[in-house]
Amino acid sequence: MAVDLAAEPEVAKLAERTAQFVREVVIPIEEEHGGVVPSEEVRVQLQSAAREAGVFAPHVSPEYGGHGLDMRGRAVVFEEAGYSLLGPLALNIAAPDEGNMHMLEVIATEEQKRRYLAPLAAGEIRSCFAMTEPAPGAGSDPDALRTRATRVPGGWRIDGKKWFITGADGAAFAIVMARTAGEPGDRGGATMFLVDADNPGMHIGRHIPTLDESLYAGHLEVTFDNCVVGDEAVLGEVDQGYRYAQVRLGPARMTHCMRWLGIARRAQDIAVGWAAKRHVFGSRLADLGMAQQMIADNEIDIRASRALIMQACWELDQGQTAGTSVSVAKTFTSEAVFRVVDRALQLCGSLGVSGDVLLGRFLREVRPFRIYDGPSETHRWSIARRVVGRHVAATTGEKA
Amino acid sequence: MAVDLAAEPEVAKLAERTAQFVREVVIPIEEEHGGVVPSEEVRVQLQSAAREAGVFAPHVSPEYGGHGLDMRGRAVVFEEAGYSLLGPLALNIAAPDEGNMHMLEVIATEEQKRRYLAPLAAGEIRSCFAMTEPAPGAGSDPDALRTRATRVPGGWRIDGKKWFITGADGAAFAIVMARTAGEPGDRGGATMFLVDADNPGMHIGRHIPTLDESLYAGHLEVTFDNCVVGDEAVLGEVDQGYRYAQVRLGPARMTHCMRWLGIARRAQDIAVGWAAKRHVFGSRLADLGMAQQMIADNEIDIRASRALIMQACWELDQGQTAGTSVSVAKTFTSEAVFRVVDRALQLCGSLGVSGDVLLGRFLREVRPFRIYDGPSETHRWSIARRVVGRHVAATTGEKA
Amino acid sequence: MAVDLAAEPEVAKLAERTAQFVREVVIPIEEEHGGVVPSEEVRVQLQSAAREAGVFAPHVSPEYGGHGLDMRGRAVVFEEAGYSLLGPLALNIAAPDEGNMHMLEVIATEEQKRRYLAPLAAGEIRSCFAMTEPAPGAGSDPDALRTRATRVPGGWRIDGKKWFITGADGAAFAIVMARTAGEPGDRGGATMFLVDADNPGMHIGRHIPTLDESLYAGHLEVTFDNCVVGDEAVLGEVDQGYRYAQVRLGPARMTHCMRWLGIARRAQDIAVGWAAKRHVFGSRLADLGMAQQMIADNEIDIRASRALIMQACWELDQGQTAGTSVSVAKTFTSEAVFRVVDRALQLCGSLGVSGDVLLGRFLREVRPFRIYDGPSETHRWSIARRVVGRHVAATTGEKA
Amino acid sequence: MAVDLAAEPEVAKLAERTAQFVREVVIPIEEEHGGVVPSEEVRVQLQSAAREAGVFAPHVSPEYGGHGLDMRGRAVVFEEAGYSLLGPLALNIAAPDEGNMHMLEVIATEEQKRRYLAPLAAGEIRSCFAMTEPAPGAGSDPDALRTRATRVPGGWRIDGKKWFITGADGAAFAIVMARTAGEPGDRGGATMFLVDADNPGMHIGRHIPTLDESLYAGHLEVTFDNCVVGDEAVLGEVDQGYRYAQVRLGPARMTHCMRWLGIARRAQDIAVGWAAKRHVFGSRLADLGMAQQMIADNEIDIRASRALIMQACWELDQGQTAGTSVSVAKTFTSEAVFRVVDRALQLCGSLGVSGDVLLGRFLREVRPFRIYDGPSETHRWSIARRVVGRHVAATTGEKA
Repeated sequence: MAVDLAAEPEVAKLAERTAQFVREVVIPIEEEHGGVVPSEEVRVQLQSAAREAGVFAPHVSPEYGGHGLDMRGRAVVFEEAGYSLLGPLALNIAAPDEGNMHMLEVIATEEQKRRYLAPLAAGEIRSCFAMTEPAPGAGSDPDALRTRATRVPGGWRIDGKKWFITGADGAAFAIVMARTAGEPGDRGGATMFLVDADNPGMHIGRHIPTLDESLYAGHLEVTFDNCVVGDEAVLGEVDQGYRYAQVRLGPARMTHCMRWLGIARRAQDIAVGWAAKRHVFGSRLADLGMAQQMIADNEIDIRASRALIMQACWELDQGQTAGTSVSVAKTFTSEAVFRVVDRALQLCGSLGVSGDVLLGRFLREVRPFRIYDGPSETHRWSIARRVVGRHVAATTGEKA
Repeated sequence: MAVDLAAEPEVAKLAERTAQFVREVVIPIEEEHGGVVPSEEVRVQLQSAAREAGVFAPHVSPEYGGHGLDMRGRAVVFEEAGYSLLGPLALNIAAPDEGNMHMLEVIATEEQKRRYLAPLAAGEIRSCFAMTEPAPGAGSDPDALRTRATRVPGGWRIDGKKWFITGADGAAFAIVMARTAGEPGDRGGATMFLVDADNPGMHIGRHIPTLDESLYAGHLEVTFDNCVVGDEAVLGEVDQGYRYAQVRLGPARMTHCMRWLGIARRAQDIAVGWAAKRHVFGSRLADLGMAQQMIADNEIDIRASRALIMQACWELDQGQTAGTSVSVAKTFTSEAVFRVVDRALQLCGSLGVSGDVLLGRFLREVRPFRIYDGPSETHRWSIARRVVGRHVAATTGEKA
Repeated sequence: MAVDLAAEPEVAKLAERTAQFVREVVIPIEEEHGGVVPSEEVRVQLQSAAREAGVFAPHVSPEYGGHGLDMRGRAVVFEEAGYSLLGPLALNIAAPDEGNMHMLEVIATEEQKRRYLAPLAAGEIRSCFAMTEPAPGAGSDPDALRTRATRVPGGWRIDGKKWFITGADGAAFAIVMARTAGEPGDRGGATMFLVDADNPGMHIGRHIPTLDESLYAGHLEVTFDNCVVGDEAVLGEVDQGYRYAQVRLGPARMTHCMRWLGIARRAQDIAVGWAAKRHVFGSRLADLGMAQQMIADNEIDIRASRALIMQACWELDQGQTAGTSVSVAKTFTSEAVFRVVDRALQLCGSLGVSGDVLLGRFLREVRPFRIYDGPSETHRWSIARRVVGRHVAATTGEKA
Repeated sequence: MAVDLAAEPEVAKLAERTAQFVREVVIPIEEEHGGVVPSEEVRVQLQSAAREAGVFAPHVSPEYGGHGLDMRGRAVVFEEAGYSLLGPLALNIAAPDEGNMHMLEVIATEEQKRRYLAPLAAGEIRSCFAMTEPAPGAGSDPDALRTRATRVPGGWRIDGKKWFITGADGAAFAIVMARTAGEPGDRGGATMFLVDADNPGMHIGRHIPTLDESLYAGHLEVTFDNCVVGDEAVLGEVDQGYRYAQVRLGPARMTHCMRWLGIARRAQDIAVGWAAKRHVFGSRLADLGMAQQMIADNEIDIRASRALIMQACWELDQGQTAGTSVSVAKTFTSEAVFRVVDRALQLCGSLGVSGDVLLGRFLREVRPFRIYDGPSETHRWSIARRVVGRHVAATTGEKA
């Protein structure tokens, strides 16, 4: 059987339904609120509508109410959901919940799934993923992890400070990465814990003001101070946190890409719509060469991103770790969607700068994606190391 | 006498004083308010401090309380003022007032100067420049001008709609570009009028929400509806509006560049300061090659912008129209400062995205500058036409 | 059945065999001759070796001695052949013969196949494709076609001038595009003719000296002067030349991309090999950040090109015209392979500039590909027109 | 006295005379020979013509027959000379002789000047500068210097291998950098020697084939094997070679930039001339937006390069080392001229690829300039280190 790039019919149908739902239901609400979900009430309303439209939580298995999409299927559907800033939340596939569901489904015990995954997949609760720390802690360099979990009878005591914990405000639980062995700078020795938000040792701090504002509930500082949890709070195995985190991080990087690719397409559509009707210097804007160049470069960036995402997803679906493909797709897509939105804004001129279209909002939302989930520089470093390692291995017989 | 790139000693001293004033007085206020002037009270406070520091209104002639800086002198001083988003307002050299003062000083009658320039230079009132119109009116293409001034006994009646009129809210008067001859699409036939804000025919409309927010009093819609002014309201000569506007636009593009270059330098300093102390992957960030590349590219962009601005300013000071040099400097600088801020933000990672430093704010402020005052595409088109025209003239003897 | 990106096992095996053949047989000869086939003798020797290795003419159907690869299969195998500048000639898949075989197999009559395709597929003869004309004739703009074919009893008389006709020197026949209706500037009215090289009306002119030199037999000027051919020389139908040419041009653009992608990979391997052993400033070059950035960007460019090529090939294999996908893949790949070679050369420093490695040669070979087969600007124009056309059709119900 | 950007009248006149000489005398010979000086006879002919035109050796002092131009004056005149690939040789300001004359005039003893500088300035002999070594010797990293000079009675014995020694074939003498103290990797300990070409210990090896071919006499391997010289052969002071080399390297980088900027302007003129007359798709090429963008970007790159060169030259003329300004100007200009030539070639399409215009030749000549005289990466590293060092010094009071 040869290379095939057609989506399965059912996936294609779900994607079409998602596109229609986003267009008809989500975008009016998004435009009314300038791209930012204003309240829990609107979140609930959006998710109800998605459930009704049969597009809710498509990534979780049918057992948890979803369509059991593999990564390739998500690539097709999530892009459609991402066509609006509010689409992912409506479908319950927004960060960080979507990545947490993915990881719980793969790693969690049955009891953990019952307690955390089920209500999360149903949209009854929200969650967060507490890994990133302020400097000099774990950021681009996960080995710098400083939050520490110490053995106590029957469980662990977690102490440390996290920041940029998306969605922490109002989350029912956190998945917390803490050091159970070694010192900051050591590779390994991390463990993931499930911590209920009402644990008296977990403190939600300030909302960090950020350039982006559309991720629901924002980015927060979270402190763990004498935060004691039982053994049943360990997710996966002790000291294997980073190995397990890979289960989350690779796919989560790809689902980010899918969603932002949707926004890139939206930006392009807004700009093309404007260029097709605006006249300047005696010509239709869409007929001027420099405008055509921007439109074409947007199309190229969008299609190249999509192709690289699909390649990585296919590898992930084959059970590969897909490290290089994920880094390549994440780096290219995060930079490409920024270029696309930037060009779209330029094409629309003063209108693009104004709040009368959402392009300025999109620019603010996609810019941080070149930093979140690994800055482009870290991914490039990782790509180069693998490329060189493979070359050395191939030419010397040494192991890469 | 050969090429000399040293600033005059007095200009150098004024620049140094400005730098110190910005560092010690302005930046603390800027950081307190996130880069946006919160109230008229703060504006007055800043300007008083600038007056006290002997750096106020350096561009107007001593007759109006300034230092009479030529364009080259402004290049040196305004860059220092621009090191803070609030510096230009403090010195009373912010857009659009600064450009209006420049134009009034060159074009206005003595009576007009007494009435408009004197209080403007003193910071007692503010002003706006009402040229840009919503599509399909005058934007990148000034010939599309639709606002019309019709002859009435003893004066003119102005009717039309403007938008993106910076600082209109609270301005004491507007300089309005209106068509006195020809039809939209015709070159020429425009006239500038001085309209008092309390003219019953001038209506300040909505604040346009925009990506940028630091230009004082924002960008507004302004409508002229049966707005009658006397003959003394004509600025310059009837039907010569675009010729006179060149007096404003070339220099105003350069002063924009100077101010934003200051922000680029500030962004670079923030990033370098961070890179010099942050450690990651076992190294100081400033010692990692990819970080060094960004720092070096920022330095190159800053220096090239500065050199191009000075070239255009020198030509303007020689009395040349400097059309190509202005377009080259504006296009390069507007794109360079955006790249600089973007790289600085990238260097700072999550911190750069957060409101804990002003880089996200700077990104929002500089982005529109690639559109305001002529989008890069319009300037490139203009540059190419001149280059080709000169080539044809040189090789065929035809007039360019 | 979902998206699948794995090549068929037989294709994968053929690709592996091709890679080995190129590595062991072709590259030593390529390096000996600096990347340029020096003589017909070497061409014959290379093709014999390929036949022996079972990798010859993989794109033609088994009936003509090949493996009948579809476009997706070619994507995999041709990239391996392209790893050496001489690989494509060795496999008999070099331009322009490969594209001509493809077109003849689809369009030609049985008699034409017997007479032209069979010996061409066997490597017994060579051919050329005579479409491009010097300005103001058919170049980027095919409608400008000036070469004319006039009805004469029993056939046609062709008159006109072509240039950049690759491989014309020594070709046994030419496929000639000539105008049979309309005037230069008209869309349509073109017809393709099979013209034997010994036709007294076909004259091979000068070898055009070019930046690239590795395409066998070079680029030539060809003049048709009272060149009379019979009706059986018409390829496809009269006046349908451009419709038929699409059969050739889309796939030929993709096979160009595949081959040059091979060279990009080769350049990357040379650079990585050097970076892995060269020490500078106390570090291994491969461990310096700026070098890692170049290596990573090369990897990204290579993978994105490959993914876009495969997308277009898949569409072509589905029987789609794939116009946008072909233009996207051609534009991106031609620019990406240039960037890759350029960075590889930079990584190798003085060595890269020297003839001691082939990077300078590669740079010269890939540069023209941004112009040949449609300059990037023409493809961007075409992409933008389709994108805008589709948008207008979707929003207005008008036909795109 | 304020900033002044006008050249002195005499310099302006010399530049004009140079431009005329290049246009009328040099370019016809250049085009006849495809940009490469074919023989010593042509070199002599060109230099005689330059002498006659009063433009010969403008950089050396009147004592040696020149016009005593300072760096700013060179910037203006050398750009005009560089408008043809053969202009610099005609004026006797080509690399490496021009840089050697500059250094000799500053450093050499009177006897050394009489013996080496006088005939060199007169064009009677040629010279070379033997610093670069093959890996792992001195390349981007001068500290890696391996060629060694050992004390012998009355002088020194030099042993080592150099490569990429421009103009060595036929040079009357070499200025050789050799280690007189320390080990490879040490900073310092280098000394410069004047070695006559007929010294039996100096061996001219192979001509290194390179992408560029227009530097007269090419790039060679040179070996020193038991090469004994007297104490009078020391140029400057023992162990101070790198300090003295700065006298040569900064200015030599700038004169490279000036010359290549001339080629960039030439490329732009060729492309603009073509765009102004070529019609395609029903328009003049020069009226198509994507072409205009390339023309405008070329103009911007040319002007920014010129401005950065002048800034560095002014600093050098003030007696400053100008390290950052030189690195900024060299990095920007070397990349800008490559972009300009690349875009010019693209604008000309197939014609640009052909030898019918010299653009392909120019591309080959300017590409290595991003590597020669310090690769862009090394300069960026140096720029970043200075920027960070200055920042740390300013904020901590530590020495930069």
